[in-house]
Amino acid sequence: MIESVKVIGAGRVGSAVSARLAERGVTARDDADVVLLCVPDTAIPAAVRCLSPDVARWVAHTSGATPLSALDPFERRFGLHPLQSFTRERGPEQLDGAYAAITAETDEARAVGFELARLLGLQPFALAEEDRALYHAGAAIASNYLVTLYRAAADIFEEVGAPVEGLRPLMQGVIDGGFELTGPIARGDWATVERHLAAIRTRRPRLEPLYRVLAEATTP
Amino acid sequence: MIESVKVIGAGRVGSAVSARLAERGVTARDDADVVLLCVPDTAIPAAVRCLSPDVARWVAHTSGATPLSALDPFERRFGLHPLQSFTRERGPEQLDGAYAAITAETDEARAVGFELARLLGLQPFALAEEDRALYHAGAAIASNYLVTLYRAAADIFEEVGAPVEGLRPLMQGVIDGGFELTGPIARGDWATVERHLAAIRTRRPRLEPLYRVLAEATTP
Repeated sequence: MIESVKVIGAGRVGSAVSARLAERGVTARDDADVVLLCVPDTAIPAAVRCLSPDVARWVAHTSGATPLSALDPFERRFGLHPLQSFTRERGPEQLDGAYAAITAETDEARAVGFELARLLGLQPFALAEEDRALYHAGAAIASNYLVTLYRAAADIFEEVGAPVEGLRPLMQGVIDGGFELTGPIARGDWATVERHLAAIRTRRPRLEPLYRVLAEATTP
Repeated sequence: MIESVKVIGAGRVGSAVSARLAERGVTARDDADVVLLCVPDTAIPAAVRCLSPDVARWVAHTSGATPLSALDPFERRFGLHPLQSFTRERGPEQLDGAYAAITAETDEARAVGFELARLLGLQPFALAEEDRALYHAGAAIASNYLVTLYRAAADIFEEVGAPVEGLRPLMQGVIDGGFELTGPIARGDWATVERHLAAIRTRRPRLEPLYRVLAEATTP
């Protein structure tokens, strides 16, 4: 039973996590049950070196792709990666409904990771150490590259004087519709795809490789 | 003032549009004020040939990329493209909050197009004929290729045994966060990007070109 958690880091993840723990009445003592490192991947080893060896029962990090060995020499450890794209503009509600990948080396560690995830309002699932990099690549494709699509479309909309605000209900509609494919490729309408490519080539040539690869990946 | 609209087509768009018009009490007479073609792009010329020359004051289509000349010989015409990805599983609520591109050759035609869009619950904006193909490519990037990202990420999640349901709150979080870029590229963490690529190359090599082009397009 987790009664105290010490969060290290006050960035996007650390702020949301700390706010949620405060909401739940979880204390943040130095000798907490869990020390949770919410720091950039590259800062994990340095943060670990600052922990006294007996500072806590469990040490964990929130990185998606970093191996557990980054927490050496601590052996009571796990990874808890919240599957969410956090912004500083929002609070702990960002955790609600999101999933969390728990990577652990023992059943006990996994149980603590699951408990902490649920305490945060996250839905935990187990992820094997050797799958972390591929899993994190998938998460980046879904979240970071969604921003890339938005920016490319916004660039085009600005070029033609269309309202960029119109992209949000469009993209929301795709999610609400259960990610069903519509549009020219779904209809097998290659003439329209060619018309898109011709327009991009003329007016936004730097977007051509992006459009082309995405069209190919979309084609059944 | 539009009092009657005849919708041709009962696909994704036609069904939602007809349901909305019925909600608003707009009649669908054969001699309606507007005939709205909600048919596949390639079927527009055939649908136009079926219209008697005096059948309506205005003829319009809902295609994003098709030129207005597809409505020849009708001259009282416009294009109304709802900027939404429609599914048959949902109803007229799909129109709420979405935008609509109105392409017209006269001020009068534009005014009728704007009126019809608002009647449908859409937020109209004017789009020049010569910008339609590029605009539609932008819309396809934001909506169709969002499905492509989802499918690629779901493929990876299945491979590592992560819950595909976790992708929805993640992608929703990106929209709710205002499309802010997070993750390794935002942090300049190229080691993680290389780790992603190595994992994809080993276990999902067909996704490598997609990941690579998206990473390049995301890099500032």
